[in-house]
Amino acid sequence: MANPTAAMLVIGDEILSGRTHDTNTHHLAQELTSHGIDLAEARLVPDRIDVIADAVRALSAAYDHVFTSGGIGPTHDDITADAIAVAFDVPLDVRDDARALMQAHYDSSGMELNAARLRMARIPEGATLIDNPVSIAPGFTLQNVHVMAGVPAVFQAMVASIMPTLTGGAQILSQSLRVLRGEGDIAGPLAEVAAAHPDVSIGSYPFTRDGVFGSNIVVRSTDGAAVDGVITTLARLFHVRQ
Amino acid sequence: MANPTAAMLVIGDEILSGRTHDTNTHHLAQELTSHGIDLAEARLVPDRIDVIADAVRALSAAYDHVFTSGGIGPTHDDITADAIAVAFDVPLDVRDDARALMQAHYDSSGMELNAARLRMARIPEGATLIDNPVSIAPGFTLQNVHVMAGVPAVFQAMVASIMPTLTGGAQILSQSLRVLRGEGDIAGPLAEVAAAHPDVSIGSYPFTRDGVFGSNIVVRSTDGAAVDGVITTLARLFHVRQ
Repeated sequence: MANPTAAMLVIGDEILSGRTHDTNTHHLAQELTSHGIDLAEARLVPDRIDVIADAVRALSAAYDHVFTSGGIGPTHDDITADAIAVAFDVPLDVRDDARALMQAHYDSSGMELNAARLRMARIPEGATLIDNPVSIAPGFTLQNVHVMAGVPAVFQAMVASIMPTLTGGAQILSQSLRVLRGEGDIAGPLAEVAAAHPDVSIGSYPFTRDGVFGSNIVVRSTDGAAVDGVITTLARLFHVRQ
Repeated sequence: MANPTAAMLVIGDEILSGRTHDTNTHHLAQELTSHGIDLAEARLVPDRIDVIADAVRALSAAYDHVFTSGGIGPTHDDITADAIAVAFDVPLDVRDDARALMQAHYDSSGMELNAARLRMARIPEGATLIDNPVSIAPGFTLQNVHVMAGVPAVFQAMVASIMPTLTGGAQILSQSLRVLRGEGDIAGPLAEVAAAHPDVSIGSYPFTRDGVFGSNIVVRSTDGAAVDGVITTLARLFHVRQ
């Protein structure tokens, strides 16, 4: 059976302008791979409700899960909850359980739960909360869309909160072989091995070090024995001692 | 007049699996911003001809420019040129000028221009070549789609080759203000300033350092005087010495 599929939606003008470097996609990719969920696509969109809502609808229909990052803070440019409510045509309002979490947190910190902070307790109708052990204001899951913060420490904590609740598939196993020959030298025989083993995925990634051309060959499959077999074949073919 | 728009299309299973961290989008975002072209969207897709071709068609129709990264090497998993040919329904074959560039390079390096390397001289009909001073095998531009390598050093060299050929718009100017107060404290007054200045874009990005909550406020516009004015207003409002 094929693994569940997922898409990542990164939201934020600051990433499109080059001010901030998105690291959440890479983190999610690694977590999903180790959980047996295939990340099939990622998109990066600006802080615009219509654009976010369109992307959410398209990705939600195409994949088993959608993960979003960014735009759920207290400021005027945090509009992801609004966009999700538009995407699924549901009301958006401050919810008692989210408000209670935040009230307790701000009371204990001696800070005021003002109108801006209360924006973070607005949850689209029908959603379940995602725990945020770092800064309390929760994320939420509506249908198959998991809405999380953009700050990497908070994003990672939210991913850790929800990952155990998701049904994973077979874990993709991978092994790699480092060959000190350029891709152009090994590409012919490599293509023959790939054609003979359609059950595994074989990727080749070039590198240069100290003026030497080399290739990292990565073999991936849910079948560990198949990966072993192909790696052994390639090691013999390219005279690499394992 | 609005600035030209662009999209980035990152191609590669190795990025979706979390093996490799894409840095090309961030580099392109910075280059485009300084050139007055707005990066409006980025997508990350797997090594599948149909998926790449669909994305290329959609992005090419929606934006002034599309930049792609990855999948133009000599190995069997390098299928971007094939996907571009499918997307625009044009023939794909080895082209004499691309072959000549590579023949001269491999002759001088004492390497063979074998069948695998010759794959890199396959150029969709009607495309113009993009210079690759790092490793010679060229990228290409077909219609409004610029096809470049995934290896960051080569991607960056190709971006440098084509950027001067693109018509830029007004450069977006930005200034930032570092406020040692959490976003929840400043969000209310900040929203009022944002509403009063629709000609500038104001973003807020939280940070914590040594247990102190702070916010970086970024003001962006093509109008430098407007940015100055808003930064001065915000500095007074939040008692920040500039």
